[in-house]
Amino acid sequence: MPRPPEVSQVARSLPGAVYSAFAERLARHAGETYPLHVGDTWLEPPARCRVSDLDRPGLHRYAPPAGLPALVDALVERERTRGGAACERANVLPTVGATGGLAAAVATLAGPGEEVLLAAPYWPLIAGIVRAAGATPVPVPLVGAPEDGAPTDPAGVVAAVRARITPRTVALYVSSPGNPTGRVLPPAWLEALVGAAREADLWVLSDEVYEDHRYAGPEHVPVRALAPERTITARSCSKAWGMAGLRCGWLVGPEAVIAAIRGVTTHAVYGPPTPAQEVAARALAGPGDAWAADARARYAQVGREAARRLGVPAPEGGTFLWLDVRPALAGSEGGLDALLARCVDRGLLVAPGPSFGPFPGHVRVCFTATPPEVTLRGVDVLAQVLAEATGR
Amino acid sequence: MPRPPEVSQVARSLPGAVYSAFAERLARHAGETYPLHVGDTWLEPPARCRVSDLDRPGLHRYAPPAGLPALVDALVERERTRGGAACERANVLPTVGATGGLAAAVATLAGPGEEVLLAAPYWPLIAGIVRAAGATPVPVPLVGAPEDGAPTDPAGVVAAVRARITPRTVALYVSSPGNPTGRVLPPAWLEALVGAAREADLWVLSDEVYEDHRYAGPEHVPVRALAPERTITARSCSKAWGMAGLRCGWLVGPEAVIAAIRGVTTHAVYGPPTPAQEVAARALAGPGDAWAADARARYAQVGREAARRLGVPAPEGGTFLWLDVRPALAGSEGGLDALLARCVDRGLLVAPGPSFGPFPGHVRVCFTATPPEVTLRGVDVLAQVLAEATGR
Repeated sequence: MPRPPEVSQVARSLPGAVYSAFAERLARHAGETYPLHVGDTWLEPPARCRVSDLDRPGLHRYAPPAGLPALVDALVERERTRGGAACERANVLPTVGATGGLAAAVATLAGPGEEVLLAAPYWPLIAGIVRAAGATPVPVPLVGAPEDGAPTDPAGVVAAVRARITPRTVALYVSSPGNPTGRVLPPAWLEALVGAAREADLWVLSDEVYEDHRYAGPEHVPVRALAPERTITARSCSKAWGMAGLRCGWLVGPEAVIAAIRGVTTHAVYGPPTPAQEVAARALAGPGDAWAADARARYAQVGREAARRLGVPAPEGGTFLWLDVRPALAGSEGGLDALLARCVDRGLLVAPGPSFGPFPGHVRVCFTATPPEVTLRGVDVLAQVLAEATGR
Repeated sequence: MPRPPEVSQVARSLPGAVYSAFAERLARHAGETYPLHVGDTWLEPPARCRVSDLDRPGLHRYAPPAGLPALVDALVERERTRGGAACERANVLPTVGATGGLAAAVATLAGPGEEVLLAAPYWPLIAGIVRAAGATPVPVPLVGAPEDGAPTDPAGVVAAVRARITPRTVALYVSSPGNPTGRVLPPAWLEALVGAAREADLWVLSDEVYEDHRYAGPEHVPVRALAPERTITARSCSKAWGMAGLRCGWLVGPEAVIAAIRGVTTHAVYGPPTPAQEVAARALAGPGDAWAADARARYAQVGREAARRLGVPAPEGGTFLWLDVRPALAGSEGGLDALLARCVDRGLLVAPGPSFGPFPGHVRVCFTATPPEVTLRGVDVLAQVLAEATGR
């Protein structure tokens, strides 16, 4: 029993503030800094879709836990147009960001003694989210490099998933376009994944928060189009329209599971903020698409240039580059932490590979968190640190 | 294992949308409606503390998971002034409302197989929050009427708590000023409660969201003043300054447990909305106290008048009246649901007693959710329905 000062087993299983020691060190840096460790955008949200544009009586009151009706209606319309499957009001749920949606979905699908497969490398919070539900995250190398055990074709995808399924497996989490990989999974891969999930009768959690940010590679396929009966999809106003600080996203899935998730979110946060839901509804009425198209062009350009300077392939989507820094680690002392420290000493913070699964020799670089010219100066710092480590 | 369409045991244990059937019926009501079932305020937040007052670059970006530094500093100052115990930055954590704070705190303190004592009648979400953590809520009749088993003195308080403590008990939840009772617990009662918790080495969760809304009775005592080593206190911008829709509150407690809770909130929602944290910091700089003083005077007046019309004692604090309607149930058919339905048919929705613990013969009425004149017309509807049922 957790007597003071002890805490619950679940709380003990969660990682503490991952970047905070480095972030504090960065805050003390004298020159220009490059905080490329967090996924955010330098762009302001669409005009007329900012909280300063809102001013009506009752704006600061609770919205219903099921969501602001105007937003729910706009989400239904949006899902019918682009979501790949039928959608009624009972299929959607506004959430406190996609994070709040995915956390509630995992708590609704998994519990102690159960396992959730994570297509790895994965979004850093998802492993802790699975642990917070009392369940066990099981990384499946699926979207990385073949030398890290990732498959090279759909048959390999099925084999990788099958190899990790146990009687305790309840769900499979996948994100495309991917964080941290910047990869867009081909339709045949997604079909293979969903097929393996269907074969084992698993839930599918599809994290599609970067769907608007695709620059190359295959078309984005909404996973609900492949298996609407078992898929819960998370979407994000943060990523779609530069509203991360507003904490609003949404889930879409089968009616019964959305109702159960609503019970969880009500008891976790009551519901997402009212002003965030209002500006999200405004963005969905048109300005959001225009903003996303503009952001996409800007992101693609800076992503391509950042990749060129680092000597890696241009990202297909998302807002990150995923870098194998093992050659630099082999040529210098102190491992990944020492490499990160050398970056921080020059004002640059990037995210360490182990946050994304079993990847002690990788880092993730966000190319949209700061304006392009700042980002590229940060990328140059990283290129320089890596070149020094490899002696080139 | 929860295969589609099944969900987790925790999700199954949570109540669905409690009021939604009645709320939908209310929405179809032709005349004026009195939605007195939810705890909210008709007042707008303080001037210059509304989201429409904010407009700076970066306002829509993530805040750090530990909170916006300006808010954290303001909270520390506030806790040092009024919180009853020493406070540093590491003792406070902005949360997605007090709800988000309490949910994360419970998940941090309790897990499967453990029990949390709830001073009953209690805030409706807390029982589900305990279940969401996989633990068991144990109501302790403490703040109701003596005829419902509540004690009448501090010795009775200790006896009531001791009688429910088992080896699995990890924490005690108490709220004063109380929701739904409107009661402010005397210092000697709180000392007795905390003494019983200390004796059994329990955590104490003190829900003080209504502390600014005290109209009569004992002074409010911050429970941290009595047991800072084991108390986590939840406070609310929603209740303090009419900002429920912004979803911001905060926790204050021992450094180690606040750090553990931050791990939970990061994995539940990342953090509270940035604009909400900004206006909360503004309110703490002065306008909040003035607003609360004005609100207190208005709330006290309408609360007193509502109580007078219903023939119950005036509330000591909070925003609710807690009514024993057993005489009306005895005199009519169909029980509480039928009584609620008769209210809804006249445009009035109140909250049913079973949401607050084992109270099948009570209802809760919020006297601040609508403007006073509307509230009092709703109260008159209730008085009329009750009078008809008792034949008076």
